[in-house]
Amino acid sequence: MITRHLCHLLLLIVASTASGTELSVNGDRLNQSIADIREMGLAESGGSDRTAFTPENKVALDYVASILRPLGYAVEIDAAANLVAVKEGSEPGLAPIMTGSHLDTVPDGGHFDGIIGVMAAVEAARTLAGRTLRHPLEIVVWANEEGGKTGSRAIYGDVAPEEMVLPALKGGTIGNGMAAMGGDPATLADVARAPGDIAAYIELHIEQGAELDRLGLDIGVVEGIVGIKRWYVDATGVTNHAGTTPMDRRQDALLAASKFVVMVNDIVTGVPGTQVATVGKMQAYPGTPNVIPGQAKFSLEIRDLSMSKIDELYAAIRESTEKLQQDSGVRFSFQHYYTSPAAPADPAIQSLIAEQARRRGYSWQDMPSGAGHDAQSVAQIAPMGMLFVPSKDGVSHAPGEYTTPDQVTKGANILLDTILALDSQLD
Amino acid sequence: MITRHLCHLLLLIVASTASGTELSVNGDRLNQSIADIREMGLAESGGSDRTAFTPENKVALDYVASILRPLGYAVEIDAAANLVAVKEGSEPGLAPIMTGSHLDTVPDGGHFDGIIGVMAAVEAARTLAGRTLRHPLEIVVWANEEGGKTGSRAIYGDVAPEEMVLPALKGGTIGNGMAAMGGDPATLADVARAPGDIAAYIELHIEQGAELDRLGLDIGVVEGIVGIKRWYVDATGVTNHAGTTPMDRRQDALLAASKFVVMVNDIVTGVPGTQVATVGKMQAYPGTPNVIPGQAKFSLEIRDLSMSKIDELYAAIRESTEKLQQDSGVRFSFQHYYTSPAAPADPAIQSLIAEQARRRGYSWQDMPSGAGHDAQSVAQIAPMGMLFVPSKDGVSHAPGEYTTPDQVTKGANILLDTILALDSQLD
Repeated sequence: MITRHLCHLLLLIVASTASGTELSVNGDRLNQSIADIREMGLAESGGSDRTAFTPENKVALDYVASILRPLGYAVEIDAAANLVAVKEGSEPGLAPIMTGSHLDTVPDGGHFDGIIGVMAAVEAARTLAGRTLRHPLEIVVWANEEGGKTGSRAIYGDVAPEEMVLPALKGGTIGNGMAAMGGDPATLADVARAPGDIAAYIELHIEQGAELDRLGLDIGVVEGIVGIKRWYVDATGVTNHAGTTPMDRRQDALLAASKFVVMVNDIVTGVPGTQVATVGKMQAYPGTPNVIPGQAKFSLEIRDLSMSKIDELYAAIRESTEKLQQDSGVRFSFQHYYTSPAAPADPAIQSLIAEQARRRGYSWQDMPSGAGHDAQSVAQIAPMGMLFVPSKDGVSHAPGEYTTPDQVTKGANILLDTILALDSQLD
Repeated sequence: MITRHLCHLLLLIVASTASGTELSVNGDRLNQSIADIREMGLAESGGSDRTAFTPENKVALDYVASILRPLGYAVEIDAAANLVAVKEGSEPGLAPIMTGSHLDTVPDGGHFDGIIGVMAAVEAARTLAGRTLRHPLEIVVWANEEGGKTGSRAIYGDVAPEEMVLPALKGGTIGNGMAAMGGDPATLADVARAPGDIAAYIELHIEQGAELDRLGLDIGVVEGIVGIKRWYVDATGVTNHAGTTPMDRRQDALLAASKFVVMVNDIVTGVPGTQVATVGKMQAYPGTPNVIPGQAKFSLEIRDLSMSKIDELYAAIRESTEKLQQDSGVRFSFQHYYTSPAAPADPAIQSLIAEQARRRGYSWQDMPSGAGHDAQSVAQIAPMGMLFVPSKDGVSHAPGEYTTPDQVTKGANILLDTILALDSQLD
């Protein structure tokens, strides 16, 4: 670690010396562009209602295209309805450096989730106007992030034809929505790229917790996007009369399920790390005040950057459940129904991001992303990096999302710096 | 206690000496009459479907009347739709000894709950044919026990006019149902009796747990019908993202509610006694696997023979909840919505029942009734006693309810004996 830090220090000195006039984004222009997007789908609540495949979403894409085209970007909507804007680089044969995020929101969502990643990329393009990088610079607005990451998942061929008939968030199907935006479900497979096709991907996003906000930090260097496993759990005891069944003759499924919830919390908080586990759904049956519940149905979710740590925690939970079963006379059955693999960020890009923050004197920390992002799709085929800026009180997917103009500008500067650093370092 | 036991022993000797030819019920006739009732509302499942106010219920009342009238009973349907059958006694001015139970069932219920109490009373009347007691003997089939004890509650003026428009279990209103059976909602108040109007009330019923069955005992001497208090409880924390909210930053309402459920169990099982507490209803909100529940809504029920013990347990639960609130950041609010006062059995009648069991050599124990019964209504205005017979595996309100013919017969003999003992002892 000392060697790495020393190396970073040397790079810092070299970089400071090399760039007498440091390139920075235009914060006013950037924040104005975010305010412009806000008007394209302003909800009555004051939030953003610009769900995927809606006219509001289309207007926002056109706005982005109208900025990038004059800067020399070739802009197109690909088959997955992603907006893809490319400016060629100076050195032939290099794969593009890619950056972007999404402009679609959840219904009645916020003004920052996704938007700042796109508009910071656009601002980087504006700031770099007149310069030509070694690598092509590719700016992407991913389609339908909030409705299943359809756009970014197409980049590694993960979108099954069956998904085209699934409902979109605001009605109609995903397939029809894509087509309405200028995509083409029939040629979706052509969107997929192979490892090596993208030199590096970097995405700026708001944190969706309140870690940076609470600690007063400028930048989160994302270590990766956590993996997720989910189970449905059934606890089956014996339904019985709440008046005539003595306490020591009960097989109360809800009591056993309650002990399970407490036990999961104990196990997951009992080891070091940033792992989280949640029981989000819980219902007792038959569910009347004067009947001992014979059944409880609930969910279990575990997230961590390491899939094997998730498996270890789950094994510990299952082991403790064995004892709980014996003590309570209530049987537990687990049905695993969902896995989202962890997507670690590229260590070299993580170091680069941290380096830029240090160089600018911005405060920062490493942190996992507990939420899913388009970046995790691109990570399947390319080195990926992500950085977070603070989000006030961690409000997410709601009109109250807020990041100050200064925080947004700082994030965009680190995005710009990292693009430049990648451009100079990568082959 | 030694003195009381000695006293019972002396009584036993006296009684055995006094009655050379002991009067006993005709077990075959009794069990046949129970089998006859079973045919009046036999469900496809094999259970009894003879809910209040149905034609099947009416047929069963007519059957009872057809047995009692030839024995010299004046039979009528009162305004509350109770069947009331009275045979006058020999000593003018004495209040009646009352016995009975109900013939209505829950939809798809059992063949014994309520029925054996009525048919044992009818069998006692048959056994006593040709004799005249000192007191009037009054046999009652209470109306709508399973739908709210409307019939027995009318006996102490507890049925509000508003209840007449409430839905009956099988459709229509309770008021219309009463009228269809020959009652009269308009004169319901006339059914009420005053303290002193009934010399004593005694009811035979199946246990609705499995205590007697498990211990192999013949008779349960009911100490009283437990009181019940019920609350709805809301636990309010903060709804949050299950991926981005670290474990130590959560205000998880379901985790706090789960700790509450475990704590209630610990408190209620931590003191001696037959008290029970149940959380029968539990639901987490918003209730999706990837969202930390911001709210949990659940019920709390406590039952005991002593209302003050219920209050003490509740106070202990509230005190522990204070600490839980502080530790979890989750607020709890309690809404008390139901009280059913405890109805202690008359100690003298309890002793009489136990005495008869001892005299016949039947095994017995004292026990609370955790379920509600018509007897608790009558207890509001008269000395009340109840006895239980075993119920196989404690099955209740289901086609599988079962009590052996021998067990039924033993219960009826004790009912008969107790009526005779009351008749000789009471003024």
